[in-house]
Amino acid sequence: MKILSVNAGSSSLKFTLLELPEEKAIISGAFEKIGLDDSFYTIKYQGKKDKKEVKLESHTTAVKLLLDELINYKVIKSYDEIDGVGHRIVHGGVNYTKSVIVDDDVLKELEKTIPFAPLHNPAHLVGIRSFMEVLPNTPMVVVFDTAFHQTMKEDEYLYALPYEWYLNYAVRRYGFHGTSHRYIAMKMKEITGEDKKIISCHIGNGASLCAIKDGKSMATSMGFTPLAGVIMGSRCGDIDAGLIPYVMSQTKKSFEEVMDDLNKKSGMLAISGVSSDMRDVEEGYNNNDKRCVTAINMYVNRIVDYISMYNTKLEGADAIVFTAGVGENSDVVRKLVIEKLSFMGVKLDEEKNSTRGIDGEISTKDSSIKVYVIPTDEELMIAKDTYELINK
Amino acid sequence: MKILSVNAGSSSLKFTLLELPEEKAIISGAFEKIGLDDSFYTIKYQGKKDKKEVKLESHTTAVKLLLDELINYKVIKSYDEIDGVGHRIVHGGVNYTKSVIVDDDVLKELEKTIPFAPLHNPAHLVGIRSFMEVLPNTPMVVVFDTAFHQTMKEDEYLYALPYEWYLNYAVRRYGFHGTSHRYIAMKMKEITGEDKKIISCHIGNGASLCAIKDGKSMATSMGFTPLAGVIMGSRCGDIDAGLIPYVMSQTKKSFEEVMDDLNKKSGMLAISGVSSDMRDVEEGYNNNDKRCVTAINMYVNRIVDYISMYNTKLEGADAIVFTAGVGENSDVVRKLVIEKLSFMGVKLDEEKNSTRGIDGEISTKDSSIKVYVIPTDEELMIAKDTYELINK
Repeated sequence: MKILSVNAGSSSLKFTLLELPEEKAIISGAFEKIGLDDSFYTIKYQGKKDKKEVKLESHTTAVKLLLDELINYKVIKSYDEIDGVGHRIVHGGVNYTKSVIVDDDVLKELEKTIPFAPLHNPAHLVGIRSFMEVLPNTPMVVVFDTAFHQTMKEDEYLYALPYEWYLNYAVRRYGFHGTSHRYIAMKMKEITGEDKKIISCHIGNGASLCAIKDGKSMATSMGFTPLAGVIMGSRCGDIDAGLIPYVMSQTKKSFEEVMDDLNKKSGMLAISGVSSDMRDVEEGYNNNDKRCVTAINMYVNRIVDYISMYNTKLEGADAIVFTAGVGENSDVVRKLVIEKLSFMGVKLDEEKNSTRGIDGEISTKDSSIKVYVIPTDEELMIAKDTYELINK
Repeated sequence: MKILSVNAGSSSLKFTLLELPEEKAIISGAFEKIGLDDSFYTIKYQGKKDKKEVKLESHTTAVKLLLDELINYKVIKSYDEIDGVGHRIVHGGVNYTKSVIVDDDVLKELEKTIPFAPLHNPAHLVGIRSFMEVLPNTPMVVVFDTAFHQTMKEDEYLYALPYEWYLNYAVRRYGFHGTSHRYIAMKMKEITGEDKKIISCHIGNGASLCAIKDGKSMATSMGFTPLAGVIMGSRCGDIDAGLIPYVMSQTKKSFEEVMDDLNKKSGMLAISGVSSDMRDVEEGYNNNDKRCVTAINMYVNRIVDYISMYNTKLEGADAIVFTAGVGENSDVVRKLVIEKLSFMGVKLDEEKNSTRGIDGEISTKDSSIKVYVIPTDEELMIAKDTYELINK
């Protein structure tokens, strides 16, 4: 079966076509700046990347072009060879604990989740509707970033905020990156043969940690939104909300402007003064740039904080797993994090840790907690869910 | 020497008169609702408490009355027997790392700290000026809640927020309850004979944890304001700031109203639905009231989270110390907290833990981290600082 795994943003559409059950990614690409003047798309196929500048009026234009290119690249002969489309949805609200096939009820329900993710969920809906228009007979599946964390217990997901905010407006911790953390849980079971107690560290431009027990999420660092938790590329992570009124009064900024700063002008970008991209900050760190050193130390501190909390929640973790952009590629961050845990007997195999493109264990044999690098694959999870649901 | 230890609020004035260096509290009291119609004061002396309803026009009225009552109670014969007055100050801003004698420069500097604590610091200044008016020749000392935490390192006190907020407006973590955490560090040194690695849990209506090494604060749970960290009586502790815009849009409340809710209508009050007072919530917990059970579980979770983080920061703590209202009196909270740490070998002596009015060790001999209850005494610390500075 050929399954499209899709991630639609407000002006973008990313896709991967996978062959299931072989779990083989065939072709992938991204349509960017949809609806804008300088729109373009890129296609990656057999190690080569092509870029074309073309007018992309709408997501529907992009979807048609996508399918035509699949024919062009001789990956499919006709549209109906696409057996299913899996859509990534950032926020599933209170009701979605797993992936589902899209029908009218689901579309209605998704409309209701828009207030939870006002920037993302409307774009996802546009993506779904565009595919439904072009492929009216192909089953669509939605896969939620929040679903995996719905196993958290009440005393973990509730905030100590007015209770009616929870009852009436569903204000609670949701958590994100669930598809990635679920992938890590699945891979770890494949590797170790059982459900281990795992601290999954999805550290990319966005970042969250997750405590996993019996294959289920017990706790995660992001909150009601993806702003909370560890420090990210341009997001602040956990802060004292009490400082916002002071910042407003001192900077004369509006509340909206300050919130925008917390999301887009904070994190590694703000502290390093260099970039939100960890590669740039690491370069500064290696050159002993004072602010880059501080930024990396803060970044590491917060990851270590969450690992420490989750180690207790799991009553002693079996494994720490690093994944996503920084987690997979930054041996420096991994090294600094694990060094801070050495007092409890966690030990990195320095040679394994510094190997590029590693996929597997990087701790020493006598490490009290095993440490792994596992490249995440959210596209595959989305395709697998889609495949399983349409074959039910 | 007779030293007055004073805590002035916007409409209150609390005092304790102590004999130094004997460290003996002689008499204490509180003037309440100053400037309001139903003002009154209470005096505690030799185990008895007297209450008088009287018009308290200003803090100066209260100060005069206070001193007259000391004469009345035959504790002093004249005003000039007061050798010094120590004032508690919530926020010392960026410059104060320890207590200082008040002079014109200090008064000017204190004016500058007002934006950091707009509710508290102006009241403290009123208190100082009232005492200076009535006792113009008596030395005054200011003791800051923030001072003890000024030893935190940059990567601990900085937030991942726009760097100019730090440079221009001193937005950073300050931490509070410093006088109490410093007292705990001092007492622990007296008890154990050396500087141990301590996790000090000051858990009262307000609450903060502090990691102490070599007698210095390394990290603390409150932030720029006392809103952050663990769950408190009516304060939310750490939340996702990203939820504020959503709450505003759903409840139609203004930003100021929501911030007010986070400070006054959140915490244990909000989750339990019963009270911000732990004694009431515990009663509900014991009667299996669902929301009280959830509230206590959340409360315990957050304390355990911070203990776990600080245990790592200290590379293995030697001692966990409980202090302040809840910390000293709630054997249930202590028991639930330590149970969650049992996987790492921390063990409570159940009998010692359940003894009322305990002052000392409550862990078993083989506990991997020692656990103590130590009643805090901020008034004594303020008086000691005052005594030491005026005898320099």
